[in-house]
Amino acid sequence: MLFQRVALIGVGMIGGSFVSALKSAKLVSHVVGVDIDKTALNSALKLGVIDSTASIETLDNIDAIILATPVGAMFSIFTALQQHGLIDVLITDVGSTKQSVIDAAEKALGYIPKKLVPGHPVAGKEYIGVEHASADLFAKHKAIITPADNTDADALSAVTAMWKACGATVNIMSAKEHDRILAATSHLPHILAYVLVDSLVSTKDEDCVFTYAAGGFKSFTRTASSNPIMWRDVCLANQEAILMWLEHYQNKLNTMKELIENKNLDAIEAVFMHAKQNRDEHFEKTK
Amino acid sequence: MLFQRVALIGVGMIGGSFVSALKSAKLVSHVVGVDIDKTALNSALKLGVIDSTASIETLDNIDAIILATPVGAMFSIFTALQQHGLIDVLITDVGSTKQSVIDAAEKALGYIPKKLVPGHPVAGKEYIGVEHASADLFAKHKAIITPADNTDADALSAVTAMWKACGATVNIMSAKEHDRILAATSHLPHILAYVLVDSLVSTKDEDCVFTYAAGGFKSFTRTASSNPIMWRDVCLANQEAILMWLEHYQNKLNTMKELIENKNLDAIEAVFMHAKQNRDEHFEKTK
Repeated sequence: MLFQRVALIGVGMIGGSFVSALKSAKLVSHVVGVDIDKTALNSALKLGVIDSTASIETLDNIDAIILATPVGAMFSIFTALQQHGLIDVLITDVGSTKQSVIDAAEKALGYIPKKLVPGHPVAGKEYIGVEHASADLFAKHKAIITPADNTDADALSAVTAMWKACGATVNIMSAKEHDRILAATSHLPHILAYVLVDSLVSTKDEDCVFTYAAGGFKSFTRTASSNPIMWRDVCLANQEAILMWLEHYQNKLNTMKELIENKNLDAIEAVFMHAKQNRDEHFEKTK
Repeated sequence: MLFQRVALIGVGMIGGSFVSALKSAKLVSHVVGVDIDKTALNSALKLGVIDSTASIETLDNIDAIILATPVGAMFSIFTALQQHGLIDVLITDVGSTKQSVIDAAEKALGYIPKKLVPGHPVAGKEYIGVEHASADLFAKHKAIITPADNTDADALSAVTAMWKACGATVNIMSAKEHDRILAATSHLPHILAYVLVDSLVSTKDEDCVFTYAAGGFKSFTRTASSNPIMWRDVCLANQEAILMWLEHYQNKLNTMKELIENKNLDAIEAVFMHAKQNRDEHFEKTK
């Protein structure tokens, strides 16, 4: 048993999956759930995802804290954790952006706690709520850990062990690198899918659009069913990298529009073939 | 048995699935495969998807013709069918665009054959080739039929029966309406996915992009593994509707970029929520 009592702040699908996996792996004995949403806490208790509930004010005897709220809540959580003497506990998180978590800590505290180990499992589902938590969500996925310069080695080892216990492969990189890469592979596709669905449902063809949507549309827009508040926060927390990739994409899309306008079939085929070959090379073997 | 001998021109995943379903349903007895790709013909023969091979020049005793090539090939096929006395046979197709098929016939022949019944199954897979054909591909999917003003009623009934035998729900609409709707639900998402993958693989982060791609990226870009030549042809064949939706999307994407630049969290959340609610309402019950 690595930890007797762990606090899960933000009791949703990702956090719930994380503690479920940790309990399955016998790394955590007791999980205290903290959430402003009492319904979520009750569901999590009933499901056995958490073992008791508390608020940050009433947390005690906690060996580790897992932050699993939308990333926009981190600043106020770090402030509250300090106020209640919990800032020196091992703290990790599962947020989709990583530099913003480090920045929120530094802004709230004036320094980066040594035992803060920012983490991000590269896995998820497009559903909201702890009832969608599952202990095997992270198995065979990657978990990225982005320590700061002063991160405690033992704390880093402990969080690494936690993710390995979930069946994940752990990669260590800087928060900046994480944010730049995930902006491309995760944040941008989410935004593109949200905007596509939004752009279609505001038209006179709205009804037809869903009636005649095939599998391609459904899979393309799967991410548009994700948590809007979580993703709203990501847009702010990783603004710079997202805007960089978004503009890059807009430029490429504009080039494609011109190719279609000019009926440049060879160039269109070259773009499609290039995309297909690269995607197939990376994904088809794992299908 | 509706037809003794059917010619399948274009022996790939979609056409192969169609004739497999028709044979399973005992609507077709013998399928003659026609394709410029001899490897595809041999595979189809081995798999039992087709029963014999021919060229358009050597087709004989054919009760119906199914065109399942990329839509850009339709003009030359109609020309060849007329030259070889086959233009008065019942002809249907499975192309992703419909007005272009009617236009190709009219351009090649000077008129629209009465027994030409343009069709489009709203189903597919992102794989190329007859080895991916399956008789159940269209079950519980929609098939859209877009007759012209002069389409023969018996021919329309026969093609309707063919798709129903595949387990599909048949919808009749005009080719123009089909093309406008499918440009939104199918053509645009394919183009967006191709451009996303292409835009990422040409950067210094190329390796990382695939290494750290989670399920969201994989599902978002699934359509980017589709047949590049087929989709190249669609871009030309449905140019007008695609450009209309693409520009609409570009405007919405630009608005989103401005919201992110301006850190307008409420407006970002509203777009995401609107998309999620609409998508969930239409899809989640069928997940």
